[in-house]
Amino acid sequence: MKALSDNQCEVCRGDSPKLSEPEIKALLGEIPDWSVEVRGGVMQLERVFSFSNYNSALNFTVKVGHTAEEQDHHPALLTEWGKVTVTWWSHVIKGLHRNDFVMAAKTDKVYDLSEA
Amino acid sequence: MKALSDNQCEVCRGDSPKLSEPEIKALLGEIPDWSVEVRGGVMQLERVFSFSNYNSALNFTVKVGHTAEEQDHHPALLTEWGKVTVTWWSHVIKGLHRNDFVMAAKTDKVYDLSEA
Repeated sequence: MKALSDNQCEVCRGDSPKLSEPEIKALLGEIPDWSVEVRGGVMQLERVFSFSNYNSALNFTVKVGHTAEEQDHHPALLTEWGKVTVTWWSHVIKGLHRNDFVMAAKTDKVYDLSEA
Repeated sequence: MKALSDNQCEVCRGDSPKLSEPEIKALLGEIPDWSVEVRGGVMQLERVFSFSNYNSALNFTVKVGHTAEEQDHHPALLTEWGKVTVTWWSHVIKGLHRNDFVMAAKTDKVYDLSEA
Protein backbone atom coordinates (compact mmCIF):
# COMPACT_ATOMS: atom_id res chain seq x y z
CA MET A 1 0.00 0.00 0.00
CA LYS A 2 1.23 3.47 -0.81
CA ALA A 3 2.42 5.35 2.30
CA LEU A 4 0.25 8.32 3.27
CA SER A 5 3.29 10.59 2.85
CA ASP A 6 3.64 9.55 -0.80
CA ASN A 7 0.14 10.75 -1.66
CA GLN A 8 -0.52 14.09 -3.34
CA CYS A 9 -3.01 16.70 -2.25
CA GLU A 10 -6.19 16.79 -4.29
CA VAL A 11 -8.23 19.89 -5.05
CA CYS A 12 -10.35 20.80 -2.03
CA ARG A 13 -13.41 22.98 -2.62
CA GLY A 14 -16.01 24.41 -0.30
CA ASP A 15 -18.33 21.48 -1.09
CA SER A 16 -15.65 18.82 -0.52
CA PRO A 17 -16.70 16.59 2.37
CA LYS A 18 -15.03 16.83 5.76
CA LEU A 19 -13.69 13.51 7.03
CA SER A 20 -16.01 11.49 9.27
CA GLU A 21 -14.94 10.55 12.80
CA PRO A 22 -14.14 6.91 11.87
CA GLU A 23 -12.06 8.16 8.90
CA ILE A 24 -10.16 10.56 11.18
CA LYS A 25 -9.55 7.83 13.74
CA ALA A 26 -8.23 5.46 11.07
CA LEU A 27 -5.94 8.08 9.51
CA LEU A 28 -4.59 9.17 12.93
CA GLY A 29 -3.27 5.62 13.27
CA GLU A 30 -0.88 6.44 10.42
CA ILE A 31 0.41 9.63 12.07
CA PRO A 32 0.47 8.72 15.79
CA ASP A 33 2.48 11.77 16.88
CA TRP A 34 -0.25 14.20 15.80
CA SER A 35 -3.24 15.25 17.83
CA VAL A 36 -6.55 16.80 16.86
CA GLU A 37 -7.20 20.25 18.35
CA VAL A 38 -10.50 22.10 17.99
CA ARG A 39 -10.26 25.90 17.76
CA GLY A 40 -13.30 28.03 17.11
CA GLY A 41 -15.19 24.89 16.13
CA VAL A 42 -12.56 23.97 13.52
CA MET A 43 -10.72 20.64 13.83
CA GLN A 44 -7.00 20.93 13.23
CA LEU A 45 -4.06 18.52 13.21
CA GLU A 46 -1.12 19.60 15.34
CA ARG A 47 2.34 18.38 16.30
CA VAL A 48 5.24 20.05 18.11
CA PHE A 49 8.66 19.17 16.66
CA SER A 50 11.73 19.58 18.88
CA PHE A 51 15.20 20.79 17.89
CA SER A 52 18.47 21.38 19.70
CA ASN A 53 18.85 24.96 18.49
CA TYR A 54 17.15 27.81 16.67
CA ASN A 55 18.72 27.33 13.24
CA SER A 56 17.60 23.71 13.04
CA ALA A 57 14.07 24.79 13.90
CA LEU A 58 14.17 27.53 11.26
CA ASN A 59 15.54 25.17 8.61
CA PHE A 60 12.70 22.75 9.32
CA THR A 61 10.17 25.58 8.96
CA VAL A 62 11.62 26.39 5.54
CA LYS A 63 11.52 22.75 4.38
CA VAL A 64 7.91 22.31 5.50
CA GLY A 65 7.07 25.63 3.84
CA HIS A 66 8.53 24.44 0.54
CA THR A 67 6.59 21.15 0.78
CA ALA A 68 3.47 23.23 1.37
CA GLU A 69 4.15 25.31 -1.73
CA GLU A 70 4.69 22.17 -3.83
CA GLN A 71 1.30 20.82 -2.77
CA ASP A 72 -0.41 24.23 -2.66
CA HIS A 73 -1.69 23.51 0.84
CA HIS A 74 -0.32 25.70 3.62
CA PRO A 75 -0.05 25.18 7.38
CA ALA A 76 0.44 27.50 10.31
CA LEU A 77 4.11 27.21 11.33
CA LEU A 78 5.05 28.56 14.75
CA THR A 79 8.84 28.77 15.00
CA GLU A 80 10.35 29.27 18.47
CA TRP A 81 13.70 28.48 20.09
CA GLY A 82 14.08 24.70 19.90
CA LYS A 83 10.64 23.89 18.57
CA VAL A 84 8.24 24.28 15.67
CA THR A 85 4.50 23.78 16.08
CA VAL A 86 2.87 22.69 12.80
CA THR A 87 -0.90 22.97 12.37
CA TRP A 88 -2.80 21.67 9.36
CA TRP A 89 -6.42 22.18 8.46
CA SER A 90 -8.44 22.97 5.35
CA HIS A 91 -9.65 26.55 5.54
CA VAL A 92 -12.14 26.16 2.71
CA ILE A 93 -14.12 23.40 4.48
CA LYS A 94 -13.33 24.73 7.99
CA GLY A 95 -12.08 21.34 9.12
CA LEU A 96 -10.05 18.28 8.26
CA HIS A 97 -9.71 16.89 4.74
CA ARG A 98 -7.62 13.88 3.73
CA ASN A 99 -5.09 16.42 2.38
CA ASP A 100 -4.28 17.45 5.97
CA PHE A 101 -3.31 13.90 6.89
CA VAL A 102 -1.23 13.58 3.72
CA MET A 103 0.58 16.81 4.62
CA ALA A 104 1.06 15.74 8.26
CA ALA A 105 2.66 12.51 7.03
CA LYS A 106 4.88 14.48 4.63
CA THR A 107 5.85 16.77 7.55
CA ASP A 108 6.88 13.74 9.62
CA LYS A 109 9.03 12.58 6.71
CA VAL A 110 10.73 16.00 6.44
CA TYR A 111 11.49 15.84 10.19
CA ASP A 112 12.81 12.28 10.05
CA LEU A 113 15.13 13.20 7.17
CA SER A 114 16.24 16.43 8.95
CA GLU A 115 17.05 14.66 12.18
CA ALA A 116 18.55 11.50 10.61
CA MET B 1 20.37 60.17 17.71
CA LYS B 2 21.00 56.55 16.84
CA ALA B 3 17.90 54.79 15.47
CA LEU B 4 16.50 52.08 17.74
CA SER B 5 17.03 49.55 14.93
CA ASP B 6 20.77 50.29 14.89
CA ASN B 7 21.18 49.31 18.55
CA GLN B 8 22.50 45.92 19.60
CA CYS B 9 20.95 43.61 22.17
CA GLU B 10 22.66 43.63 25.53
CA VAL B 11 22.95 40.66 27.87
CA CYS B 12 19.67 40.14 29.72
CA ARG B 13 19.77 38.15 32.98
CA GLY B 14 17.09 37.13 35.42
CA ASP B 15 17.87 40.16 37.58
CA SER B 16 17.80 42.62 34.66
CA PRO B 17 15.01 45.14 35.23
CA LYS B 18 11.80 45.02 33.23
CA LEU B 19 10.94 48.29 31.54
CA SER B 20 8.66 50.67 33.42
CA GLU B 21 5.34 51.75 31.93
CA PRO B 22 6.63 55.24 30.99
CA GLU B 23 9.67 53.62 29.33
CA ILE B 24 7.42 51.25 27.38
CA LYS B 25 5.17 54.12 26.30
CA ALA B 26 8.15 56.16 25.10
CA LEU B 27 9.70 53.25 23.18
CA LEU B 28 6.36 52.29 21.56
CA GLY B 29 6.45 55.75 19.97
CA GLU B 30 9.44 54.54 17.94
CA ILE B 31 7.67 51.36 16.73
CA PRO B 32 4.08 52.55 16.22
CA ASP B 33 2.95 49.44 14.31
CA TRP B 34 3.54 47.17 17.31
CA SER B 35 1.14 46.51 20.15
CA VAL B 36 1.63 45.16 23.65
CA GLU B 37 -0.18 41.89 24.39
CA VAL B 38 -0.30 40.29 27.82
CA ARG B 39 -0.34 36.47 27.90
CA GLY B 40 -0.19 34.54 31.14
CA GLY B 41 0.84 37.75 32.89
CA VAL B 42 3.77 38.27 30.49
CA MET B 43 3.92 41.46 28.40
CA GLN B 44 4.87 40.83 24.77
CA LEU B 45 5.38 42.98 21.68
CA GLU B 46 3.47 41.84 18.62
CA ARG B 47 2.97 42.83 14.99
CA VAL B 48 1.33 41.08 12.06
CA PHE B 49 3.19 41.57 8.75
CA SER B 50 1.27 41.08 5.49
CA PHE B 51 2.50 39.51 2.24
CA SER B 52 0.99 38.81 -1.15
CA ASN B 53 1.94 35.13 -1.12
CA TYR B 54 3.35 32.29 0.96
CA ASN B 55 6.93 32.39 -0.27
CA SER B 56 7.31 36.07 0.60
CA ALA B 57 6.02 35.35 4.10
CA LEU B 58 8.41 32.41 4.46
CA ASN B 59 11.38 34.48 3.21
CA PHE B 60 10.57 37.16 5.77
CA THR B 61 10.45 34.52 8.54
CA VAL B 62 13.93 33.35 7.53
CA LYS B 63 15.35 36.88 7.49
CA VAL B 64 13.92 37.70 10.92
CA GLY B 65 15.22 34.35 12.16
CA HIS B 66 18.73 35.19 10.97
CA THR B 67 18.58 38.61 12.62
CA ALA B 68 17.49 36.85 15.82
CA GLU B 69 20.47 34.51 15.63
CA GLU B 70 22.87 37.42 15.08
CA GLN B 71 21.59 39.12 18.23
CA ASP B 72 21.03 35.87 20.17
CA HIS B 73 17.48 36.95 21.00
CA HIS B 74 14.69 34.85 19.52
CA PRO B 75 11.02 35.62 18.80
CA ALA B 76 7.98 33.50 18.18
CA LEU B 77 7.35 33.57 14.41
CA LEU B 78 3.96 32.39 13.21
CA THR B 79 4.07 31.90 9.44
CA GLU B 80 0.75 31.53 7.62
CA TRP B 81 -0.47 32.16 4.07
CA GLY B 82 0.07 35.87 3.43
CA LYS B 83 1.11 36.86 6.94
CA VAL B 84 3.72 36.46 9.64
CA THR B 85 2.97 37.29 13.28
CA VAL B 86 6.15 38.27 15.15
CA THR B 87 6.17 38.25 18.96
CA TRP B 88 9.06 39.50 21.08
CA TRP B 89 9.54 39.19 24.82
CA SER B 90 12.37 38.35 27.20
CA HIS B 91 11.77 34.88 28.63
CA VAL B 92 14.35 35.26 31.38
CA ILE B 93 12.62 38.30 32.95
CA LYS B 94 9.12 37.18 31.89
CA GLY B 95 8.40 40.52 30.30
CA LEU B 96 9.71 43.34 28.15
CA HIS B 97 13.34 44.45 28.06
CA ARG B 98 14.79 47.20 25.89
CA ASN B 99 16.17 44.37 23.71
CA ASP B 100 12.63 43.53 22.60
CA PHE B 101 12.09 47.05 21.28
CA VAL B 102 15.47 46.99 19.54
CA MET B 103 14.50 43.69 17.88
CA ALA B 104 11.03 44.98 16.94
CA ALA B 105 12.67 47.98 15.25
CA LYS B 106 15.10 45.67 13.44
CA THR B 107 12.13 43.52 12.33
CA ASP B 108 10.42 46.61 10.87
CA LYS B 109 13.63 47.38 8.97
CA VAL B 110 13.78 43.82 7.55
CA TYR B 111 10.15 44.20 6.39
CA ASP B 112 10.71 47.62 4.85
CA LEU B 113 13.72 46.29 2.92
CA SER B 114 11.82 43.14 1.83
CA GLU B 115 8.84 45.08 0.56
CA ALA B 116 10.83 47.95 -0.98
